[in-house]
Amino acid sequence: MTTNVKTAYSDLVDKLEDISRLGGVMSTLHWDQEVIMPSGAAESRAKQISALAGVIHERSTNPELGECLSQLSEEDPSAFNAFEACNIREAQREYDKETKVPIKMVQEMAELGSRGHFIWAKAREDNKFSDFAPTLNRFIELKKEWAACVFPDLSAYDANIDNFERGTTMAEIAPIFESLKSELIPLIQSVKEAKYQPDTSFLEGTFPVDKQEALGKQISRDMGFAFDQGRMDVSVHPFCGGGHPTDVRITTRYRDSDFIESLYAVIHETGHGLYEQGRMTEGRDLPVSEALTMGIHESQSLFWERMIGQNRAFCVHYMETIRATFPKNMQAVSVDALYEAINTCNPSFIRVEADELTYPLHVILRFEIERGLFDGSVTVQDLPELWNNKMSDYLGVRPPTDTLGVLQDVHWSGGAFGYFPSYTLGAMYACQFFNTMRQELPDTVKHIEAGHFAPIKTWLNDKIHSQGSLYSPQELVQKITGEPLNPKHFTDYLKTKYRAIYKTI
Amino acid sequence: MTTNVKTAYSDLVDKLEDISRLGGVMSTLHWDQEVIMPSGAAESRAKQISALAGVIHERSTNPELGECLSQLSEEDPSAFNAFEACNIREAQREYDKETKVPIKMVQEMAELGSRGHFIWAKAREDNKFSDFAPTLNRFIELKKEWAACVFPDLSAYDANIDNFERGTTMAEIAPIFESLKSELIPLIQSVKEAKYQPDTSFLEGTFPVDKQEALGKQISRDMGFAFDQGRMDVSVHPFCGGGHPTDVRITTRYRDSDFIESLYAVIHETGHGLYEQGRMTEGRDLPVSEALTMGIHESQSLFWERMIGQNRAFCVHYMETIRATFPKNMQAVSVDALYEAINTCNPSFIRVEADELTYPLHVILRFEIERGLFDGSVTVQDLPELWNNKMSDYLGVRPPTDTLGVLQDVHWSGGAFGYFPSYTLGAMYACQFFNTMRQELPDTVKHIEAGHFAPIKTWLNDKIHSQGSLYSPQELVQKITGEPLNPKHFTDYLKTKYRAIYKTI
Repeated sequence: MTTNVKTAYSDLVDKLEDISRLGGVMSTLHWDQEVIMPSGAAESRAKQISALAGVIHERSTNPELGECLSQLSEEDPSAFNAFEACNIREAQREYDKETKVPIKMVQEMAELGSRGHFIWAKAREDNKFSDFAPTLNRFIELKKEWAACVFPDLSAYDANIDNFERGTTMAEIAPIFESLKSELIPLIQSVKEAKYQPDTSFLEGTFPVDKQEALGKQISRDMGFAFDQGRMDVSVHPFCGGGHPTDVRITTRYRDSDFIESLYAVIHETGHGLYEQGRMTEGRDLPVSEALTMGIHESQSLFWERMIGQNRAFCVHYMETIRATFPKNMQAVSVDALYEAINTCNPSFIRVEADELTYPLHVILRFEIERGLFDGSVTVQDLPELWNNKMSDYLGVRPPTDTLGVLQDVHWSGGAFGYFPSYTLGAMYACQFFNTMRQELPDTVKHIEAGHFAPIKTWLNDKIHSQGSLYSPQELVQKITGEPLNPKHFTDYLKTKYRAIYKTI
Repeated sequence: MTTNVKTAYSDLVDKLEDISRLGGVMSTLHWDQEVIMPSGAAESRAKQISALAGVIHERSTNPELGECLSQLSEEDPSAFNAFEACNIREAQREYDKETKVPIKMVQEMAELGSRGHFIWAKAREDNKFSDFAPTLNRFIELKKEWAACVFPDLSAYDANIDNFERGTTMAEIAPIFESLKSELIPLIQSVKEAKYQPDTSFLEGTFPVDKQEALGKQISRDMGFAFDQGRMDVSVHPFCGGGHPTDVRITTRYRDSDFIESLYAVIHETGHGLYEQGRMTEGRDLPVSEALTMGIHESQSLFWERMIGQNRAFCVHYMETIRATFPKNMQAVSVDALYEAINTCNPSFIRVEADELTYPLHVILRFEIERGLFDGSVTVQDLPELWNNKMSDYLGVRPPTDTLGVLQDVHWSGGAFGYFPSYTLGAMYACQFFNTMRQELPDTVKHIEAGHFAPIKTWLNDKIHSQGSLYSPQELVQKITGEPLNPKHFTDYLKTKYRAIYKTI
């Protein structure tokens, strides 16, 4: 590197670190708002967040940043190591995204997103899709225009997917989702018709919240979540936030009638949290260390929630602890009974309450609808009927209202099209990673039975968390598992597991 | 106002609101750091605070703000009403303060303040002053450089005092403190030697923390603190923070061996909190609505802590509640016994635990030491010995460790020199305000006995809280009480009260 290039790169690092730190402040504000803030502060906090967003936008579109990037782009790429090249590449991508969109469009999207949320919430409450339809229509138009500005080489829906799951396209997702559909629909059907249905009655009852909290913290700690670099609190919707890898804040919510919901939210969010806490130790305020995509992030939460937490071996290890925590309810429950009860399949209307077997069909339905909305084969007007037909075809249940159907998700009200596929990509990645891990660590199941999670966490730290954004998701999966994303890992896992639980073979 | 002037003023308002909102974000970060943040995040938080401090500094020193102020300064002052004139005056003062300091110095102070806090906390825990000394040394150097930039016409220590208590100088404070010293040392001596010593044995025992918390919240609510626009939490050092008048956050700390300490910290911080929540409803993101000075702020906390909370009438009202909260300990205690027990004079090591009679001497000690550090007659190395000698001279007690001596206060770890005098100025203001209030509301004592605090809060809201920064402290005291700050109110109050309690006359 010449001195000029060194100066330009070091200037870039300063600018990126500054933006990242202000972004960390923003995350802390959001966490505070969801968890801690008094209700009366809503108006003043909105203004504070808007002021900070203005600063971050200013920094991210600063022409000096553009000049710095342009100077670096003229350099022979071999001048940079992988760490540096990644920072430059990611910075360029973000800068393009921020500066290629006309300010009027940015403003209209921001305004529509804010207004759209309230229109959607009201429409959902009133079960009146037609009140939300014009907003949805306008957002699709806007997101098509946005796509043309930012990713002119991609089709509009691919551009929106790329925003969350870079490098992933309909061409890749569609056949995978078709194959999932053809496997899962009959599997769910056979499970529904199975004579043997697991007993879940012991999961009903009263489970004191303080006991739930202590159990969740213990399991999170056992998994390796560092509480000196993180917190666990309560919010309306569980999430993983916080302002830095050294300050990772997970939340859950409690109902005293259900300890499984809060516990698995803890395990899920701890999975996200371990990704953040496990980021590379260098460059923690730089893009290179950032988590890769939504799908890879979700692969980490689902890895712990499903591959580990819903594993029979996990029940083996925690059975005694759970019995001791809730002796009245759980004293007589066997390991197998617990394992089966937390792995039942129940086709239902609401995605966020779905089990691992039906969840992908909720996602596929949304993917097909979004694709149709962007290629013009589906109109907004058709949505309620189309939604309900698909629910009926895929899951055998037909939502009685749009509130329980097309109006259930918050995503479209904020213009987040192309987000849903990440949930199921994450589930498939998790399964594929787990299969590789079991080959590389043959004692995985024994480790889980012993509550000895350190080798598992270390494997994820090394293979995924510490890799940051150095590779694309495709490269990372290839590098770790020796093959591209292969849905067979996922369908085989589901078939084997649920046929055994429901004794259908 | 001409259109041009209107535009310039409106532009000023936009800029000031933006700065104020970012300042609110900073306050929320500081609260988070003291109350909630995981310890492992200290380093990353310091960098985030430094990044945000850089933004605020940029905004506060923006030449466009300077031009705007310069345009407004050319206007005939009569064009502006008091509200507008105050915003312009305060903005000009801040702009001058900010533009005279290089950004590197601002950032170093912010970062040292954040890191220094942890160094101090550890040194205090380890009773090792030498670990904290280099930080303290660097901060004094920085604050001298800062003073030379901002107030080149003031001596370095006066500049630091001016930062908290504008317009107040050593020349004004020193004789007042000398006179206090000459009154209080013999008064304390006579009280210590008095034959009659109130019984405080019933304040020893075990007081469950959850009961203490509930009692504190109830009394805070009774005083008028709005919990939908504020919070109450736990921190090492009680304080009042938060990011906005609609988000006021007070803290206390608990020991189960002492409920008086936590309770009076709550009352004290609630006094600060009521000032913030009581700010004028217009212009809450503008300087005009901001609290006047640290001394006036402290006058509000001490008003509630001492004039109200340590009043016999307060014991009359809460006696039954306190008995019901701690029946084992308090069942047989009379109102007079409680009143005397919470008003005993006990020369001790720790300022924040000091009674109102010995407290001024803790402050005077710090004032004299700070003055010496800034004029070079005292070195950091000398501090532990000097501190202990002065404690011995003024209060007749000698701290056995530095944890109980020179390391006890948080202030210096954040570079807050010149802050301590405000505590005693506040105590004097509080006493003078109370005397006026009793003349204007002759039923004050009856109101307190009835737990009817609304008229008292309303009087303070009207006379002080809602006045924001419209007047100088000197003007405000004159306006409210009809005379300048007069320490005789304070010394007369103390002499009358303690001679009666100790039956020394």
